[in-house]
Amino acid sequence: MNPYAAGRQPRESGWIKLNTNENPYPPSPKVMEALRRVEPSELRLYPDGDSGAMRAAAAKNLGVGVENVFAGNGSDEVLALAFQAFFSGRENVLTPDISYGFYPVWSQLYGVGTKTIPLKEDLTVDTRDYRGGRGVILANPNAPTGLALTRSEVGEIARNNPNGVVVIDEAYIDFSGVDSAVGLIGTYDNLLVTRTFSKSYALAGLRIGFAVGDKSLIDGLRRVKNAFNAYPLGLLAQTGATAAMEDVAYWDEARRRVIRTRGQTADKLRAMGRAVTDSQTNFLLMEAENAKALYEYLYENKILVRYWDTPAMNRFLRITVGTDAEMEAFINCMERQRYD
Amino acid sequence: MNPYAAGRQPRESGWIKLNTNENPYPPSPKVMEALRRVEPSELRLYPDGDSGAMRAAAAKNLGVGVENVFAGNGSDEVLALAFQAFFSGRENVLTPDISYGFYPVWSQLYGVGTKTIPLKEDLTVDTRDYRGGRGVILANPNAPTGLALTRSEVGEIARNNPNGVVVIDEAYIDFSGVDSAVGLIGTYDNLLVTRTFSKSYALAGLRIGFAVGDKSLIDGLRRVKNAFNAYPLGLLAQTGATAAMEDVAYWDEARRRVIRTRGQTADKLRAMGRAVTDSQTNFLLMEAENAKALYEYLYENKILVRYWDTPAMNRFLRITVGTDAEMEAFINCMERQRYD
Repeated sequence: MNPYAAGRQPRESGWIKLNTNENPYPPSPKVMEALRRVEPSELRLYPDGDSGAMRAAAAKNLGVGVENVFAGNGSDEVLALAFQAFFSGRENVLTPDISYGFYPVWSQLYGVGTKTIPLKEDLTVDTRDYRGGRGVILANPNAPTGLALTRSEVGEIARNNPNGVVVIDEAYIDFSGVDSAVGLIGTYDNLLVTRTFSKSYALAGLRIGFAVGDKSLIDGLRRVKNAFNAYPLGLLAQTGATAAMEDVAYWDEARRRVIRTRGQTADKLRAMGRAVTDSQTNFLLMEAENAKALYEYLYENKILVRYWDTPAMNRFLRITVGTDAEMEAFINCMERQRYD
Repeated sequence: MNPYAAGRQPRESGWIKLNTNENPYPPSPKVMEALRRVEPSELRLYPDGDSGAMRAAAAKNLGVGVENVFAGNGSDEVLALAFQAFFSGRENVLTPDISYGFYPVWSQLYGVGTKTIPLKEDLTVDTRDYRGGRGVILANPNAPTGLALTRSEVGEIARNNPNGVVVIDEAYIDFSGVDSAVGLIGTYDNLLVTRTFSKSYALAGLRIGFAVGDKSLIDGLRRVKNAFNAYPLGLLAQTGATAAMEDVAYWDEARRRVIRTRGQTADKLRAMGRAVTDSQTNFLLMEAENAKALYEYLYENKILVRYWDTPAMNRFLRITVGTDAEMEAFINCMERQRYD
């Protein structure tokens, strides 16, 4: 089995860490307040195995029923359980050839006959290629391209693949200008949308994700979850996630700051002659003739970005949008390299 | 698929909760101190996917190498991954007919041909029945019987099943008078011992478990884990578990109190003419002619114990050892029932 290779997590300080798409800002202060209110004696008890309060907060934010929400130990666990519940042993599950690196790993783990479909020349998904699948797994916005389909394009894919579950991984949707596919779940009972607290909510350290879809799909996920691990989310994860979702104003300001910094950084890179995609996420995908050498140059300057040594991706670097100061340091380092 | 049915977790107060084998005492104060020292900005980052500090603390406590320890999201996740890594698709995996209710669920989930072996009349495991398996899964002490094999008996099983992994689920070992099988892992490279923080460490709410075994087995678990979920344990779970393990004195006192209360409660029940097994765990298994009616009587008195409506178990109740006050209330309620 080929495991998923995550980006490096250096523990020593001094790094500018732009390699795993974390939020550069801390989570809402309400999260820490809620965590501090947990009594020691509460930790001795098993948590709510169904994450009821957290799912209710998500349902309220998204305007769906609590029965339309499933919670898991990070969106990675939610996605893994979705592969197991809906794709296991199936052929012709459609996915782009360039997308999240965990999809082929789960396909292998659960014996899924995934059919990878090339992106267009401009790295976008051609919706006409997604028809008649026994399932679809698609990140929207896609990673690491940073590009997004509109909601009506996602609806087209759900409509054209009626014999399978269409999983839309919206890890980055809060940084995009497109509407979430959550608005379509009343229309398409085969549509499952996954979300994470690791990006816009700045809670990668707590491990929380969720899925939204028709009750029949949520029940399918619950059955697999209850055959695997009855209590996947600890009390502190549930408490932190609920508090984060209730502070809509903080979340909105944090994601707007990331979007603003992303635009400024993209402009500066383009002014330097660099090609970057029209990112709808909290990272930039930048073309670089010798991406590996540039990765190493940045690394020597203690700036960590993401590079993949694969034929499809070895002419790109993926750069997480950090704080304004971090991006200034990154741009300055790029400028120095240009004239070195 | 038949999911695992966990005990009820009432959220309203007023219940004496003796149904899911939680520790009646809170976790070490050092746990809360460590949790309070976590900075908000740390939560925005992905945690250590390998739980290095936590595994190092476990390795130190147990006198093994850090490469001999695997950490997961509760021992349920650790056990599920062990079933997947070592038993998936195999026939003749041996297990007692009365044991932890999740084993048959994982067997079904991963297509394991489990062979269930009856307990002896006295509810103990006969080690002579465990030979030539393609794997063994055994709780020691066993649940819900509460009875334990000695370390040399566990060694005999590891020796007699060389063609499979022998998984010993030591969730309750800290309440027993027998030696842990961890002392045998240098002798038997097919022996995997699992542990939980949900019982003796009073951290069921944090979801942490681990496994100890030969490096080859730990590497097998890591491969499956990295194909499923790269970051299974959040920062707060890792931090809390590490602090709990470092406070050996607190843990020792808490488990001794439970053992003392268990003995006193068993004596009182026996004085009432009730048969209870010689528990090596934090619960008592009590025989009751009409267990269901007794369960309901206790329930009406807001005392929650565990009852299974199955042919093998419907003449027993399982009662978690609570505080002295909780057990006094339980005994008083039993006394009243006797004379009602």
